[in-house]
Amino acid sequence: MTRNRFTSARYGEVERRMAEALVDIEARSLDPAPVEDCDCKQGMFPGVSRRSLLAGGASLGGAMLASGARAQEAPPGANLNPVPEDPTRVQGRPVLSENGYGARSQFESEVRWRYPTATAQSSWSMTPLASGHGIVTPSGLHFERHHAGIPTIDPREHTLILHGMVDEPMRFTMDDLMRLPSVSRIHFIECSGNTLTEWEEPTLRTVQGTHGLTSTSEWTGVKLSTVLEMAGLQDSGTWILAEGADAAVMTRSIPVEKAMDDAILAYAQNGEALRPEQGYPLRLLLPGFEGNMQIKWLRRLEVSDMPFMTREETSKYTDLMPDGEARQFTFEMDAKSVITFPSGAMRLPRPGYYEITGLAWSGRGRVTKVEVSTDGGETWEEAALQEPVLDKCHTRFRLPWVWDGEPAVLQSRGTDETGYIQPTLEELVEVRGTDSVYHLNAIQSWGIDSDGEVTNVHA
Amino acid sequence: MTRNRFTSARYGEVERRMAEALVDIEARSLDPAPVEDCDCKQGMFPGVSRRSLLAGGASLGGAMLASGARAQEAPPGANLNPVPEDPTRVQGRPVLSENGYGARSQFESEVRWRYPTATAQSSWSMTPLASGHGIVTPSGLHFERHHAGIPTIDPREHTLILHGMVDEPMRFTMDDLMRLPSVSRIHFIECSGNTLTEWEEPTLRTVQGTHGLTSTSEWTGVKLSTVLEMAGLQDSGTWILAEGADAAVMTRSIPVEKAMDDAILAYAQNGEALRPEQGYPLRLLLPGFEGNMQIKWLRRLEVSDMPFMTREETSKYTDLMPDGEARQFTFEMDAKSVITFPSGAMRLPRPGYYEITGLAWSGRGRVTKVEVSTDGGETWEEAALQEPVLDKCHTRFRLPWVWDGEPAVLQSRGTDETGYIQPTLEELVEVRGTDSVYHLNAIQSWGIDSDGEVTNVHA
Repeated sequence: MTRNRFTSARYGEVERRMAEALVDIEARSLDPAPVEDCDCKQGMFPGVSRRSLLAGGASLGGAMLASGARAQEAPPGANLNPVPEDPTRVQGRPVLSENGYGARSQFESEVRWRYPTATAQSSWSMTPLASGHGIVTPSGLHFERHHAGIPTIDPREHTLILHGMVDEPMRFTMDDLMRLPSVSRIHFIECSGNTLTEWEEPTLRTVQGTHGLTSTSEWTGVKLSTVLEMAGLQDSGTWILAEGADAAVMTRSIPVEKAMDDAILAYAQNGEALRPEQGYPLRLLLPGFEGNMQIKWLRRLEVSDMPFMTREETSKYTDLMPDGEARQFTFEMDAKSVITFPSGAMRLPRPGYYEITGLAWSGRGRVTKVEVSTDGGETWEEAALQEPVLDKCHTRFRLPWVWDGEPAVLQSRGTDETGYIQPTLEELVEVRGTDSVYHLNAIQSWGIDSDGEVTNVHA
Repeated sequence: MTRNRFTSARYGEVERRMAEALVDIEARSLDPAPVEDCDCKQGMFPGVSRRSLLAGGASLGGAMLASGARAQEAPPGANLNPVPEDPTRVQGRPVLSENGYGARSQFESEVRWRYPTATAQSSWSMTPLASGHGIVTPSGLHFERHHAGIPTIDPREHTLILHGMVDEPMRFTMDDLMRLPSVSRIHFIECSGNTLTEWEEPTLRTVQGTHGLTSTSEWTGVKLSTVLEMAGLQDSGTWILAEGADAAVMTRSIPVEKAMDDAILAYAQNGEALRPEQGYPLRLLLPGFEGNMQIKWLRRLEVSDMPFMTREETSKYTDLMPDGEARQFTFEMDAKSVITFPSGAMRLPRPGYYEITGLAWSGRGRVTKVEVSTDGGETWEEAALQEPVLDKCHTRFRLPWVWDGEPAVLQSRGTDETGYIQPTLEELVEVRGTDSVYHLNAIQSWGIDSDGEVTNVHA
C-alpha cells in the first residue's frame, strides 16, 4: 500500500515547473476590482469580486491575510461559519444546512451593479461578467432592466390573454400553460442599451459596466406558435402586441414571423421557475431579439395587422441616424464579443502567461469565429470556442497569451454564421453616427500599460 | 391603431379550443405531492412543490385559494412582499431589491429532501426532479452526499498537493489553478447509491426519493491532465489517489487513463464558484463516473502504480454479486432514465392530454434514444430528445400522451451511444441478484390507477 506516504516534498519548485510546462505562467491574481464602475454614488451595494478576494491572499509570493480579516469581507447577511484550522478534525455542517435550498459560500460576494439612474425602479443592474465562468449566468446575477420596478404576482391568479385577429380569444392560467407541450433552449438575452456609454469616449471602467447587460440562461416554456395555433391565428394577423403586468405596462409589437418561429412563453429559467426580476411567473422569450421586446410578467397578447407603435418602439428603443431619421424595429442583436479576462480595472501583476477569455454572441445564429488581437487590431489570432456552441447563445472563447510587459491593446472580434463580422467602433460610427443610444456592438478595446493596469480605451 | 380594444370575449371557449387543437388537453394540475417521501420523521424540512402550489389554485375549474392563505405556504425565511390587486397600479420593487444577488419568488418552495439517515452529517439530500425543467439543475437544488458534513474552507488558504510518481511534486493555491487554461463542460453527477431503495420492493414514493441523487451543472476548471503534465507524470504511474479536506478525509483511486482523458479540477458550477456542498473551493470532476469518486474539497492527488484500496472502494461502493464476490471499481454509471412527469405521488385529475417528460443519461457517452411505454413494457414509442444532447449529461425527453382513464404503467428506457439499453429490473436482478446496494439503473415503472393516482410499482 502506498497510502499516507505524503512528505513535505519540494513544493518550492512549483514556479519553476509551471514556467517550464506552460511557457511562463504567472499568477493571475489581480488588484481588487472597483465595486462601483463610475464615480456617481447612489446607494449601490458594496462587495468584492471573487478575484479580488483571492487576490488578497494566496497568490504566488503574496502574503496571506490574517484570519481575523475574513468576516469583514463577507457579503451582507451571509451565514458566517467559523473556519477551522484543520477541516478534517471537526464535523462539517449537516446536509440541508441551508434550509433545503442552497446558498453560495460566505467567501463569494459578486453582485450585480446598478447603473446610477435617478430612481431604482426605472433602472438597470449589470452582470459581473469578469467573474463569470462558462456560458450560463447564475440566475441571481442575471442583469435586470425594469421600467417601473418588479411587480409581485401570485402565479395562481396570473393569466395570459390572447385575442385580436384569432378565431377564438383565449385566456390561460399558468396551469393551463404548463400542461402544454414545452421546450427548453439555452439563449442569451441582451438589452439593446448594453454598452450605451461607449459611443464617444471610454466611459465605464469595467466589463460589468460596459457589457453587463447580457446574460445566458436555459429557458423552458411553451412555444408561442402552439397557443397561436390553438386560438386560430388569422391570415391577416401580422403583428402581436405583448403586454406586461408591471406598473410600466410594458408593451412591444412582435412580428408574427418571429412568434411562429422560435418565440417561447417561458415559465422556467435554469431548471426552476423564472426569477421575479426576469418576469415571474411568465415572460416572452424572443431568442436573439433586443431584451426590451422579451416582455416580462407577460399578461396579454393581441394579434393585429399592423405594429402598435407603443412608446417603447417610437420615443424609445429607436436608433437616431446621422441624417436625422430614426431607425425603428431593429430587432436582432448583431454579433458582438468582449474579452472578460483581462478586462478593465484589473491589473496584471507581472509579465508572463495568461489565458485570455471572453464571450461572443449573435442574435442571428451561431458564433462561428472569434479572433483576438493583442496589438490593437494590427494582427489577429483565432481563439478556441468552447463547446457547445449554440444558436443565439453566449459562446465562451479562450486564447493563451504571454504578456511581454510592453503596453498592449486587447480586442476580440466575433463572426456569426451569416458571415457578419463585428465592426470596429470607427466603422460603426461611420454608418450610425454618435446620436444613437442603442445597439452599440463595436469591438471593445482594453489597454494594458507597462504596469499591467487594464483600462477601457478606444483604439 | 388597435390598442386597448380588449373586451371580455369568449374565454369560456378555452377548454373546447384546447381540446380541438391538441386532441384533449386537460389540466396538468395535481394533488399536492408529499414532502417527505417515506414515513420516517427526522426533521426534514416542510415545503410544497410548485406544481402542488399551482394545483391549489388556478387549474381549470379549480377554486382560487383565498389570499390570506398565501403566507403560510411561503418557505421559511422568505421575503414576503405584499401582492397588489393590480400590479400595474403600484410601483414594483427596485432593481437590486435582493441585495445584488437575486432570490427566487416567495411562491416557489421546492427543497431538497434529506434521506432519514441516523445523522445529518453522514447523509444525503435529493434533487426534486419532478419540478425540474430542462437539463440544468439549479445549484441550490443539486443533490448532496456528505460523509462527515460540509467543511468550511477559506479559498485563500486552500491548496492542492500533487505528488507521488511525478518528476516534481507541486502545490497549487486556488490562484495558481485559476490562472491555468480552463474548460467548461455540462455534465451530470449521479451518486451510485441513487435508487438504492428499489432492489426488491417499491419503497419510496416520489421520483425525488427514487432518483433524486443525480443533477446536472455546467462545470468549469482546469483539466487534470494539465497539472499532471506540468508535474511530469511518470510512466509507472497508473492510479491517482484523490483526497478531500472534509472530516471523512474522503479518498478514492482514479485510473490515470481517466485523469488524462476528461477529468477536471473544477472550481466553478453554473457560472459562479462551486457551492460549499459541491466541494468549494475545488472538486474533482470525473464525467460519467460514480459521484463518490468525484472528490469534493479536493486537497491532495498522489500518483501510484496500484490502486490505494481505500475504505470507500473496499468496504463501501462495491457491488455484492450473487456468487458472494464483490465487484470493485465499477466506475461508469450505466445508461438510465426516469419519467419525472407524471411520477409517484402525483394525481392526474382526469383523462386527457399530458406531456410525458423525464431525464435520461449515461456515463459512457451520449443518450441516443429514449423509448416510453404506457402499458408496462408491452409496446414502446420513441420520445423526442431535447437539444442539445450532450456527452455524459442529462438529456430531457418528451412525449405527448392521451390518458384514456384506464389503469396504465409508464416506463422509460434509455439507450446510449455504445448501444447499451437500460435493462428491466428483472434483467438486472438476473445478473446482479439483490444483495447489491449501488448501481441500480433499471427501468422505473409508475402505475396509474383509474383515479389517476400515480404510484411507484415494479412491473
